[in-house]
Amino acid sequence: MFAVTILGNNSALPAYDRHPTAQVVTLNDQLFLIDCGEGTQMQMARYKIRRSKINHIFISHLHGDHYFGLIGLLTSMGLLGRDNPLHLYAPAPLEKIITLQLEAASTNLPFTLHFHPVTEPGQILDNPKFSVEAFSTQHRIPCFGYIIREKRNPRRINKEKVVEYNIPAAFYDQLKQGADYVTKDGEVIANESVTLPNLAPRSYAFCADTIYDEQIAEKVRGVNLLYHETTYLADQAERAASRFHTTTAQAAAIAQKAGAQKLLIGHFSSKYETLDAFLAETKAAFAQTQLATEGTTFLI
Amino acid sequence: MFAVTILGNNSALPAYDRHPTAQVVTLNDQLFLIDCGEGTQMQMARYKIRRSKINHIFISHLHGDHYFGLIGLLTSMGLLGRDNPLHLYAPAPLEKIITLQLEAASTNLPFTLHFHPVTEPGQILDNPKFSVEAFSTQHRIPCFGYIIREKRNPRRINKEKVVEYNIPAAFYDQLKQGADYVTKDGEVIANESVTLPNLAPRSYAFCADTIYDEQIAEKVRGVNLLYHETTYLADQAERAASRFHTTTAQAAAIAQKAGAQKLLIGHFSSKYETLDAFLAETKAAFAQTQLATEGTTFLI
Repeated sequence: MFAVTILGNNSALPAYDRHPTAQVVTLNDQLFLIDCGEGTQMQMARYKIRRSKINHIFISHLHGDHYFGLIGLLTSMGLLGRDNPLHLYAPAPLEKIITLQLEAASTNLPFTLHFHPVTEPGQILDNPKFSVEAFSTQHRIPCFGYIIREKRNPRRINKEKVVEYNIPAAFYDQLKQGADYVTKDGEVIANESVTLPNLAPRSYAFCADTIYDEQIAEKVRGVNLLYHETTYLADQAERAASRFHTTTAQAAAIAQKAGAQKLLIGHFSSKYETLDAFLAETKAAFAQTQLATEGTTFLI
Repeated sequence: MFAVTILGNNSALPAYDRHPTAQVVTLNDQLFLIDCGEGTQMQMARYKIRRSKINHIFISHLHGDHYFGLIGLLTSMGLLGRDNPLHLYAPAPLEKIITLQLEAASTNLPFTLHFHPVTEPGQILDNPKFSVEAFSTQHRIPCFGYIIREKRNPRRINKEKVVEYNIPAAFYDQLKQGADYVTKDGEVIANESVTLPNLAPRSYAFCADTIYDEQIAEKVRGVNLLYHETTYLADQAERAASRFHTTTAQAAAIAQKAGAQKLLIGHFSSKYETLDAFLAETKAAFAQTQLATEGTTFLI
């Protein structure tokens, strides 16, 4: 399972029951929270997100609609008795803001909060199951997008064959890495006999807030699912540029240039009551587009 | 019109679609916001509160469930182009927290935010229409309750009589202050002939978070409407005391001792799914009790 669940899809002002930016990426048994606008913890309750499963949070930038819900979520995690460490990746000034708020409340979180300041693009997380890369976007203040890439074993188990060759389950992990199996009698079972080539690892890119910038297409080249903001409809290109945001047509162009398989659009301006035109305009230029509707989970 | 509208009635953790503390007091054409938990701006939209009418905000203390929604509200007021000054009364450390968050976003609010640190009990606001007094409560961190008192002219106009005596409307304000009217011919119309004694001015006390403390009854003596927290039911007195909160029976006792006309209870622990028992227990000891249900407006 590799998927993203949208908790908030609106830009600066909450409107029409749309909430500021927040989304949860599920990668097998891991949950990652990307951005955390005001009300995210309530949206988590509404959509039954298991917040105890979140060990990594990524904040794109310090405009309030992307992080004002974070301190409430952290405090609630504490009240609920969390003790697992939590890793927070965000622009550096957030650390002081959180510290001051905890101090003002005389609150000591019962878990360790590891703050990782994100100050430049590059890989920020790498472990055997996944990696995360930060990339810069062009916005009014320092802003980062994030790419989550799963890692896969080179081979996957051929369930029929491992039974046929009577290979113990304890050896499966080694099989996935490509090892041959040697029986008690010294017989060598070639790895290819009991495994299959694995699928290519999948990837998800969240492009945060950004002006139209063709460099982003390079940065997110080939991702399976690309989330790109579309704050405005296509006829508002000038307004979008002046506010360092993007239109529908521009997001479609980035997805096209990047060779993304699918495009997810969101961060809608509160001047729009309905979203149909966003989908229609973007699909016209990039067919594999979906609206980031709140409460919906999109497979990556 | 003197009334309070409840936007949030829950304690620390949002639960069962109950929100953290926030309430709006309407006094004629003025709105006052008291506390501003996360999601308050969304609750304002839901219950059609005209945020542009709010010129004074009072924050009781710096536990997050009482102020984490403030920065989002201020930012949204700015995005909506507010230019009226806004007066914020709160414990001193909040100023730095707000400043840091605005700096991190490179945001300059387009209106003047007057920060008034509340550091000790006493009158914090006094004008011809109303006054506001802060009083200390006993909680885990410095915490203040607020009493809003309307002011009334000593006399009110007797509409029939002013017409009968042909008194110009321009003189009504002086009549309300008790002045006699002198006609062009030098005839003196005694004030009592054209006015009536006014009703006693009304008052509302918000007691914030507090342990059971009989001194509060003194501080809020004789208010028309008393808001007192009831975080727990009566059987949890020990737990309430250990966390510096109050039970139903204790809130009723304070209302009784204070000689309050009516009692409003709220700040319910998220361990309770339903609130019927809160009302029943409190009413048993103080009949004029109402539950602070969200979206409801209570006349003062």
